[in-house]
Amino acid sequence: MRLSLLGFVVCTAFVDPASAERNLMPEPAGVVSLTGYLKIDPSFRIGLTGYREPRLERAAIRLIHDLERTTGVPSSMEWPADLRQAALEVITAGPSSTIQKMNEDESYRLEVTERQARLTAPNPLGAMHGMQTFLQLVEPGPDGFRVPAVRIEDRPRFPWRGLTLDVSRHWMPPLVVKRTLDAMAAVKLNVLHWHLSDDQGFRVESKRFPKLQDMGSDGHYYTQEQVRELIEYARDRGIRVVPEFDMPGHATAWFVGYPELASGPGPYAIERKWGVFDPAMDPTREEVYRFLDGSIGEMAALFPDEYFHIGGDEVNGKQWDVNSRIQSFMRQHGIKDDPGLQAHFNSRLQPIVTGHGKKVIGWDEVLAPGLPKDIVVQSWRGQKSLAEAARLGYMGILSAGYYLDLMHSASYHYSVDPLEGETAGLNDSERSRILGGEAAMWAEYVTPENVEMRIWPRNAAIAERLWSPQTVKDTASMYRRLAAVRRELDRLDLGISASHELMLERLAGNHPVGPLSALSDVVEPVKEYAREEARLYTSFTPLNRLVDATRPESDVAREFALLVDGMLTGTTDRQNCRAEVRHWLEHWRANHALLEPSLQGSFLLEELTPLSKDLSALGTVGLEALDYFESGRKPPGAWIQQQLAFFEAAGKPRAELLLMIVPSVQKLVEAAAGR
Amino acid sequence: MRLSLLGFVVCTAFVDPASAERNLMPEPAGVVSLTGYLKIDPSFRIGLTGYREPRLERAAIRLIHDLERTTGVPSSMEWPADLRQAALEVITAGPSSTIQKMNEDESYRLEVTERQARLTAPNPLGAMHGMQTFLQLVEPGPDGFRVPAVRIEDRPRFPWRGLTLDVSRHWMPPLVVKRTLDAMAAVKLNVLHWHLSDDQGFRVESKRFPKLQDMGSDGHYYTQEQVRELIEYARDRGIRVVPEFDMPGHATAWFVGYPELASGPGPYAIERKWGVFDPAMDPTREEVYRFLDGSIGEMAALFPDEYFHIGGDEVNGKQWDVNSRIQSFMRQHGIKDDPGLQAHFNSRLQPIVTGHGKKVIGWDEVLAPGLPKDIVVQSWRGQKSLAEAARLGYMGILSAGYYLDLMHSASYHYSVDPLEGETAGLNDSERSRILGGEAAMWAEYVTPENVEMRIWPRNAAIAERLWSPQTVKDTASMYRRLAAVRRELDRLDLGISASHELMLERLAGNHPVGPLSALSDVVEPVKEYAREEARLYTSFTPLNRLVDATRPESDVAREFALLVDGMLTGTTDRQNCRAEVRHWLEHWRANHALLEPSLQGSFLLEELTPLSKDLSALGTVGLEALDYFESGRKPPGAWIQQQLAFFEAAGKPRAELLLMIVPSVQKLVEAAAGR
Repeated sequence: MRLSLLGFVVCTAFVDPASAERNLMPEPAGVVSLTGYLKIDPSFRIGLTGYREPRLERAAIRLIHDLERTTGVPSSMEWPADLRQAALEVITAGPSSTIQKMNEDESYRLEVTERQARLTAPNPLGAMHGMQTFLQLVEPGPDGFRVPAVRIEDRPRFPWRGLTLDVSRHWMPPLVVKRTLDAMAAVKLNVLHWHLSDDQGFRVESKRFPKLQDMGSDGHYYTQEQVRELIEYARDRGIRVVPEFDMPGHATAWFVGYPELASGPGPYAIERKWGVFDPAMDPTREEVYRFLDGSIGEMAALFPDEYFHIGGDEVNGKQWDVNSRIQSFMRQHGIKDDPGLQAHFNSRLQPIVTGHGKKVIGWDEVLAPGLPKDIVVQSWRGQKSLAEAARLGYMGILSAGYYLDLMHSASYHYSVDPLEGETAGLNDSERSRILGGEAAMWAEYVTPENVEMRIWPRNAAIAERLWSPQTVKDTASMYRRLAAVRRELDRLDLGISASHELMLERLAGNHPVGPLSALSDVVEPVKEYAREEARLYTSFTPLNRLVDATRPESDVAREFALLVDGMLTGTTDRQNCRAEVRHWLEHWRANHALLEPSLQGSFLLEELTPLSKDLSALGTVGLEALDYFESGRKPPGAWIQQQLAFFEAAGKPRAELLLMIVPSVQKLVEAAAGR
Repeated sequence: MRLSLLGFVVCTAFVDPASAERNLMPEPAGVVSLTGYLKIDPSFRIGLTGYREPRLERAAIRLIHDLERTTGVPSSMEWPADLRQAALEVITAGPSSTIQKMNEDESYRLEVTERQARLTAPNPLGAMHGMQTFLQLVEPGPDGFRVPAVRIEDRPRFPWRGLTLDVSRHWMPPLVVKRTLDAMAAVKLNVLHWHLSDDQGFRVESKRFPKLQDMGSDGHYYTQEQVRELIEYARDRGIRVVPEFDMPGHATAWFVGYPELASGPGPYAIERKWGVFDPAMDPTREEVYRFLDGSIGEMAALFPDEYFHIGGDEVNGKQWDVNSRIQSFMRQHGIKDDPGLQAHFNSRLQPIVTGHGKKVIGWDEVLAPGLPKDIVVQSWRGQKSLAEAARLGYMGILSAGYYLDLMHSASYHYSVDPLEGETAGLNDSERSRILGGEAAMWAEYVTPENVEMRIWPRNAAIAERLWSPQTVKDTASMYRRLAAVRRELDRLDLGISASHELMLERLAGNHPVGPLSALSDVVEPVKEYAREEARLYTSFTPLNRLVDATRPESDVAREFALLVDGMLTGTTDRQNCRAEVRHWLEHWRANHALLEPSLQGSFLLEELTPLSKDLSALGTVGLEALDYFESGRKPPGAWIQQQLAFFEAAGKPRAELLLMIVPSVQKLVEAAAGR
């Protein structure tokens, strides 16, 4: 629900919808506004000049379809067109690599005048990025759809801008992967890091070792044909696909069909719980390396990217510690501890991977002395380990701070920079080893139904951090443009909003969805790893409760906080803001009576009763505070104490949800108390 | 927006969300409620007993996926299962026809106890209908999802329950056709009448006469492979596909490639406007019949259904009247007038169609003395011509009253019965010739983007009229269950709600969508053929205005009318209803100020200014009336006169939209005036 749906007045202290700012996200490196507009009408054509390939033509056709979705104006049938008529001329100098490389030129230049738009790029990658920018520039004007005249010179800040998608803990069908690639292309991300194996599933067909998928996937895996199609789909959008096969830990799914790879006796079953588990590959046996040579060889041929992700995270070493043969191997080879044994494993794995023509990427833990310098470290631990790696001469990408499954706000992710904190002190050549970053969508608590709603739109803020100049930091601007990107992605058929609505409707059943939606709009799922502690989750647990349907970030709570600030500290519009604050509080106060009938009949909703009651109580308290504030009377001390105790309780998680308006109501009480 | 979203109190005069009534639509012929519930949990299995075929297995798998969507509980991987564990046993006696026939047994029996559900049917058609019923019975309960114990004996009232889908005036891609078939199956419709050719497009690939699609479709046609796939898709859902090739009029698209078929000299171009046009096939030349024999032969082989629709509607005869050769032919053969010449054409066409193994169906106009009795007349004129046909011994189906493009309410369509009005007086054998009916979605004013929102959910009310006993007539119950069907169809990925929301967001651009949504919620598109008069539409005209985004029927206006009635005449709850009425009026009064900023900047929204102003004025007037009403003071006569004049103006269409709350606000003014 948007703020002004309820508002009877407009508090403009914090939002200017008619802002001249454009809807571009990520913000380009350089933008010069010109005067006038290029009209977008049914005569719109795209001309391709210079280097030409089928991928570029397909991109142009997609742009035409996206324009159709954006404007509702049916596209012309006559593409490709006579160049003299082309409203958008795309001039591409030459090809990009046959297999997209990490450090390719992705720049483009877009110049829009009243007569024509010219997009110039050294290769199709830049051309496709420029087309996305052009699409985001389209807006309705007084006479029709148009693109403002502008000169844009754009290139990414980092060459590696990725998303780790976990398809092991919950399977994500090809359609979801495709839509994810569509959305990534819209915000200029260029790496899909596909987390394909873990304790809970091995998700790619192996023809050489078919028990990997036959026994390790519940039938939920990508055929090699599907993998090839998805890689092609990604390449068509300027996106590399880096496969991850996590080793030596997080590998239970391998052991179901091939228990001989493990360090313990087995038998093994697909893991149904979440966490870090004991099974690990046996680094001491030659058969294991022979198997991996065969398996990695097969996968290296299937995935064309130059990088191959070997995982390497979270090995607890317990199977190694209790295996006397392994212990004696360690003694024989002078290996002191489990990390040492993992380093030994990696030192064997690395030449296997390079032997199949790939470079290695792995999580923090793979870093150990003696590894060649062309490996890439993906840091889930933070800038500190990234800085250490860079000083040692290793390349690295940042994922700490970009974990989408931890339910942080877009502004939190936006504030994390690969070159700030411990990395800020690096010298130039060390800094050049920081390649970028990757958001990560771990899949313990998402299904194909809600995963897109969890990735987007927040991931667009991370995409901007990785593409745009470091100085682009205005959070208010980011949120405004994020809303536009969300609308754009909804149009691309991502169903971010639709799945949220449908899940709420399922919960509401025959009851009106409004009151449940009002509650959902002011709560957020618990943060970090709190769901793990809340109850025992397994891969069989349905994810169909309000915590699963609710958006990761409450726009209403965020905007309500701005309203309260506008009312308390704004220089203009205090009255209007106060009136809007009052309406929201009245709305919430009334909500529990409306929601209660539906809470009682349903096993899915019963747990929400305390939250719903507290929301209404927050409405009541806030209105009392507002009355004190307006009247100038001081509230009694006992009343204040009572409310502060209430806020303490109301801020606690219930049903794995947090009421996000508590701090703002508390601020009202404190203002009334004159603090 | 649902009513109680805004309400601060609950007026229960007109709605009981905890109603014991089930969400079944269409209502079964016989339902006996039993006590208890069958639990639906992850152990749920379907067992197939008796006759078995791949189609039934696919239907069972679909049911499992639909249950997953309905509950959010992941499905078991282990289907088909051990029968002893099957929570739902489907017992099918034997096969249905290889090519689905018009009069097949579609009955089923569903018995649900606390221990098991048993679905029994003579053939897969009944079994599939029963599965849809089972799905609609699933509800959340205090302990989990469940199906109430029940005994259902069900069969359709009419054997022909169809939807005419026009894909000529606006092309509908295969995906839209598939989703339409999914939704039809959900409400037990069994005929897709595919309107494949008209003046604006010939939409099927002909290998024998390729200029039909190459010159007559703008490249928007179904390949024969796609046609076969869609027919298979339909058969999998118990749906016949009846193709229509409209002749001798509505045939301009044929003449673009083959002008020699026409009665005028040509050349011809694809028609871009809407209406009835002059070009018609030449009934006097043998080459025309030879061509049709070839063309119909090819299409008859492609479409397996026993019926073949020859159209036959709206021939204006102008080409015939000015063609001296045709005129002399008429004199030679004693043909008195144009309808006589069309009868001659049909008398030649009919043996061609039957020669290719098909029975003829056509619109009202095909009926002429001498035609064989196995043709079916589809009546767009009404029950009267249907009754005449039945008396003459012809079978018929009703489409008058079921035109979804005319933007009538669901209750209007629901009130139209094939066996009421002029058909009510038929004797039993004549009545048996009334086979059922067909809704029709003519495509002048719909695109792939909004067509599903225009068909559904209203078409479910027509589906109930054609399936359920004639005595099922409770409109309030229909609307309650219609809302549940809308939710069900949204889950099937129809995007009825999603496309509405996305179109509104496109219109709102960077402005909050709430105020525009509030306006959209109380307007409806103009009715009948009023859009034709409003402006010149062509097939190039973008359909992206509010009239295109707005739902055909305003739930808010309908429910507001019930609130006003509840307040004025209800026996209980008058106070609560009045409070809700007041809140709605305040909401509307405030809306224009919120919407105005977005109206000014956009060419798409400017036209809404008068409507938006009037909505706010209606809020103001309604609140004044409410104040008079509550105070007991009589309003001055001049005030009353002024408001009545305002209602007259506010009820007029603007931007092809009608403000639907005018009558209810008028009722408030009249109540205040003591009338």
